[in-house]
Amino acid sequence: MNMNMSARIEAVYHLETADDPEQTAALIAGEQSSGTFVAIPGEDEALKARAAARYEITALDQASRSDAKCYELKLSWPLENLGPSLPNLMATIAGNLYELKPVRSLRLMDMTLPPAFAQAYPGPAFGIAGTRALTGVQHRPLIGTIIKPSVGLSPQDTADIVAQLCEAGVDFIKDDELQADGPACPFDERVTLSMAVINRHAERSGKKVMYAFNLTGEIDEMKRRHDLVQQLGGTAVMLSLNSVGMAGFNAFRRHAQLPIHAHRNGWGYVQAGWSYTAWQKLWRLAGVDHMHVNGIANKFQEDDDSVITSARACMTPMFADKPCTIMPVFSSGQTVRQAAPTWERLQSTDLIFLAGGGLFAHPGGIAAGVSALRQSWSAAIEGLPLDVAAKTHRELREALEKFK
Amino acid sequence: MNMNMSARIEAVYHLETADDPEQTAALIAGEQSSGTFVAIPGEDEALKARAAARYEITALDQASRSDAKCYELKLSWPLENLGPSLPNLMATIAGNLYELKPVRSLRLMDMTLPPAFAQAYPGPAFGIAGTRALTGVQHRPLIGTIIKPSVGLSPQDTADIVAQLCEAGVDFIKDDELQADGPACPFDERVTLSMAVINRHAERSGKKVMYAFNLTGEIDEMKRRHDLVQQLGGTAVMLSLNSVGMAGFNAFRRHAQLPIHAHRNGWGYVQAGWSYTAWQKLWRLAGVDHMHVNGIANKFQEDDDSVITSARACMTPMFADKPCTIMPVFSSGQTVRQAAPTWERLQSTDLIFLAGGGLFAHPGGIAAGVSALRQSWSAAIEGLPLDVAAKTHRELREALEKFK
Repeated sequence: MNMNMSARIEAVYHLETADDPEQTAALIAGEQSSGTFVAIPGEDEALKARAAARYEITALDQASRSDAKCYELKLSWPLENLGPSLPNLMATIAGNLYELKPVRSLRLMDMTLPPAFAQAYPGPAFGIAGTRALTGVQHRPLIGTIIKPSVGLSPQDTADIVAQLCEAGVDFIKDDELQADGPACPFDERVTLSMAVINRHAERSGKKVMYAFNLTGEIDEMKRRHDLVQQLGGTAVMLSLNSVGMAGFNAFRRHAQLPIHAHRNGWGYVQAGWSYTAWQKLWRLAGVDHMHVNGIANKFQEDDDSVITSARACMTPMFADKPCTIMPVFSSGQTVRQAAPTWERLQSTDLIFLAGGGLFAHPGGIAAGVSALRQSWSAAIEGLPLDVAAKTHRELREALEKFK
Repeated sequence: MNMNMSARIEAVYHLETADDPEQTAALIAGEQSSGTFVAIPGEDEALKARAAARYEITALDQASRSDAKCYELKLSWPLENLGPSLPNLMATIAGNLYELKPVRSLRLMDMTLPPAFAQAYPGPAFGIAGTRALTGVQHRPLIGTIIKPSVGLSPQDTADIVAQLCEAGVDFIKDDELQADGPACPFDERVTLSMAVINRHAERSGKKVMYAFNLTGEIDEMKRRHDLVQQLGGTAVMLSLNSVGMAGFNAFRRHAQLPIHAHRNGWGYVQAGWSYTAWQKLWRLAGVDHMHVNGIANKFQEDDDSVITSARACMTPMFADKPCTIMPVFSSGQTVRQAAPTWERLQSTDLIFLAGGGLFAHPGGIAAGVSALRQSWSAAIEGLPLDVAAKTHRELREALEKFK
């Protein structure tokens, strides 16, 4: 590999401190490179010139939640310190620094990686175009769902629901992140029964529904489960990023030959130190194809601006010759009501739109639930108000009555 | 494997909410098992009886930081939902729940796992007794250090410092978490040169210094690096838990034949959702031998009570027939001043005491730094005040002058 090791890794943080900003920035830069809490004999000028992190700190015109002040802190490191290694990048950009005494709060907002990282990691194998090719869906979002109830269904129960979803014209199905390979719903049996349904439907209709089976587990298990899905004609797998972790993901990615649908559960604590914009870059470079970004008017705490920022981040190229753009996945409390605002704010259909309860709880059943979601997206793209579209579409009308 | 699948996984949380506590608890339990934001047709009583999480919520007599109130929330799940899988456990006990709207703050405080987990995972291979046997250190802590400056040294620079540390009588050395396999200090060369020094010293003195080489990286790299360390006679390896992640760690652990020294960098954000008591159980069961717990009067934000609670947690058996007890690692701004308070509060010597700056910055050099730390621990165990011991120990006296 031909690498420019004098290239630098750059990271931008939001810092709150009540201490001297210059000293705090120097302390953080030292902790994350050649310094420590006292001067060390070996840390001479030559060593610092080649290995020390550099910093820049700027006051932000922004109120702190405490008596601290807000700053933007930029740090950079020579690539030579660590090489293009994602696991080691994490210890450098998101390691001990959060805990330093003068730090009231610190969040990694963004990062820029030298091209050596693009050479060292594969990025998404399918991304937007590959996912569209496998599903045959163009010019609109993939409309999908999460098997619900999340847990408690047997493999046969699951396959029965899959049959209804296929009939109803769904594009995409995923397991809940709580459903992987528990004794109550073993992975192999769930996949075998569900793929039989999906394959039969594909033979009949020409449409192969993409089911992202949750194969989260140990690496050997994940590889074996992936191979089973592939062997049975499946077109996607899913895993929980925070459960698997970076080294495990990378090992799996090198094995995988199917799109990888990435769930972000655990984000609730990860976000204390990472913005989604910074965090998703790691995983896109590592090679996920779809990434959850929450959804407009979701059941969680996150506001809509933040959700849209996350979705745009997934669609923003990372490197000139390796964009690593992927499909953002909108999920969490999604119903027919979120199609129009999602479209209006994103102005793109390169996304997966998932409704679990918002589909299964449709008063007309699963088929009506899928139809209503399709109708809501058609109306959104055509610029037709929901209540107007509802006049000529019964399923959409019923959904609007159910999901206020 | 003979498993009782009706056994339950139990987790205890600290919850802050301004909403109705009973409804909030039910919402969280639902989100983490069979429920979602609306009632789902398939979620009937029989399904709930076999798959739903159960909850108990109790008001805590504790002030909230906001207009919310504090509660202890207990959740439990049937093992049958997920089976004894640590990656899937994470999505269940520490997944989406943090982000639910009525949750102001939520932290996983502790958990109890059914014995099936003890059967499914190896736990530490060396732990306290194995580490003592390999180092020959009994009845006192292992006194060790982190190579400093953390980054910027060449492999030869590192080996030269290792030579001084061996001469000085140190028990344990580790790489900084920032130093793994960067082009400026390649792993193989650092290990080869350092092990030559350690082996020569062992042949001469009979004492083999334990050096935990930081092999953090991709799984294949970690396995290969482990094998090199073992082949060269090394007795430990180190990795950063949050960089490697759970599935990667488990794959490495099944390969490893040396003690695993676990660094917790990134803890600054992980702690938003996890208490150390809950978090360290995952990793002990997975099989770490040493775990960082910060240190008394450290350079970070954590207070001493919290540090001691963490250390005691590492020493508390997890299962009756599989205790998984390990050596806590005290590190961060440690000097001769922390020996006595650590001993007084912990009343145990089954620990690793690491001083980086607190050793290298000794005015008499590295040898004097090691001697002073040994002297401080001898004095602590004998119950001798530091200033009294300093009268007869020059290195300790100089250290006390340097580290105020």
